[in-house]
Amino acid sequence: VDSVPIDDRGLLLGDGLFETILADAGRLEAFEAHADRLIRGCAALGLPAPEPDRLRAAAEAVLRGTGLAGVRAAVRLTWTAGSGGRGLERPARPEPRLLAQAAPAALPAGPASLASVAIRRNAHSPLSRLKTLSYLDNVLARRQALAAGADEALMLNAEGEIAGGAAANLFWIAGGRLFTPALACGVLDGIMRAQTLAAAADLGVEVVEARAPPVVLAGAEGVFLTNSLIGLRAVDEIDGRPVPRHGLVEQLNRARG
Amino acid sequence: VDSVPIDDRGLLLGDGLFETILADAGRLEAFEAHADRLIRGCAALGLPAPEPDRLRAAAEAVLRGTGLAGVRAAVRLTWTAGSGGRGLERPARPEPRLLAQAAPAALPAGPASLASVAIRRNAHSPLSRLKTLSYLDNVLARRQALAAGADEALMLNAEGEIAGGAAANLFWIAGGRLFTPALACGVLDGIMRAQTLAAAADLGVEVVEARAPPVVLAGAEGVFLTNSLIGLRAVDEIDGRPVPRHGLVEQLNRARG
Repeated sequence: VDSVPIDDRGLLLGDGLFETILADAGRLEAFEAHADRLIRGCAALGLPAPEPDRLRAAAEAVLRGTGLAGVRAAVRLTWTAGSGGRGLERPARPEPRLLAQAAPAALPAGPASLASVAIRRNAHSPLSRLKTLSYLDNVLARRQALAAGADEALMLNAEGEIAGGAAANLFWIAGGRLFTPALACGVLDGIMRAQTLAAAADLGVEVVEARAPPVVLAGAEGVFLTNSLIGLRAVDEIDGRPVPRHGLVEQLNRARG
Repeated sequence: VDSVPIDDRGLLLGDGLFETILADAGRLEAFEAHADRLIRGCAALGLPAPEPDRLRAAAEAVLRGTGLAGVRAAVRLTWTAGSGGRGLERPARPEPRLLAQAAPAALPAGPASLASVAIRRNAHSPLSRLKTLSYLDNVLARRQALAAGADEALMLNAEGEIAGGAAANLFWIAGGRLFTPALACGVLDGIMRAQTLAAAADLGVEVVEARAPPVVLAGAEGVFLTNSLIGLRAVDEIDGRPVPRHGLVEQLNRARG
């Protein structure tokens, strides 16, 4: 599929979901977790869900079709609510549309800098915990961060608690413990987030899913971002202030494999 | 245009804006206000803006092309951020895409019932005040209202203040004064909202743009919804409790013309 009709609800209303999967020389990393999350998202949105096999076949076909089966690539699967009439209400039987794209995905070089942005995440919507086609808040948050000269946004939620990046989960280390915002803060249930929490537990590191104000980051012994494409990426600066490096970041990056 | 390529950022990320304009026997109601709002929205999102003449030509062409120039119709204009690469960041020079659709639009029969929904509007994002392609919160809010047997959602913001409907602004009458949530509550800067406020002022009715908890609606002397397609529509029930009728609703509906 190269195009969608203009009555597609994904296009008109952001009604749908997506996943971005790392393909390493043709191997789809954590494919089951991605398919699972998309299917859980369909339940949350009230949409028919795809079969995992269909998702895998689409991902593998687009890797072959784009000649990216031999390199490090990002596969994006998009599941729209399908065509619909005018207005907010879906047709009685939505017929979702599956789209697949692939692009080369190099690992970012070096640590990331963060900038606080004004846009806040909305924990009072299930969208804050899902990868939906209504992703414009994230687009704008990233834009604000880039305009401030940083690589990624530091987003809070409406209550002023730390939420994460525009396209990454956030972790920090304090008192030897590993912290990340609780899902209830309005953060994506990240697959690399879950892998990182599991890896930390395996290493015997105490992990805390927290509701915390941003001031705690000023005292952190280390800060890092996670997502499926970058794995773990250290943060070396927040709003112009340096952040210490911590050996646990590299240790977790190796351990999660 | 009948389709868009699957790399369109409106489709992939909800990156874009739309307007829904009432066409009455071919006449575009409040066209300038709609064009203005879309152009202001582009500034808020950092997108190139269209010329109003181009919007008008597209709206008129779709009315003719669909044979709806002689009836009551809704014209939807969609302005996507255009094609883009992988990820949140826009290309250096976005080339937005203009889409136009038209559909018959009958006036809803009789008053509306509202149901409180769990999803809240996010005043900490400019999206809450714009008609963007990231409209899934509104889709879900409407779904929750319909599931509760009502016609439209009663949405609060994250602070628990009254915001409005899923696709309408909300007004209430109390102590002879007319109230509507302030834009800072995270509500769309509705064109019919502005017309209603102006009509009330012309009638000598005191108007208040308020931050108010939903309990005030229990004591209201009248409640109504507004949007460009329905004009003013009385609310006769909120969460199963009857709402009194008030003569001002009809008076304003006539006066705004």
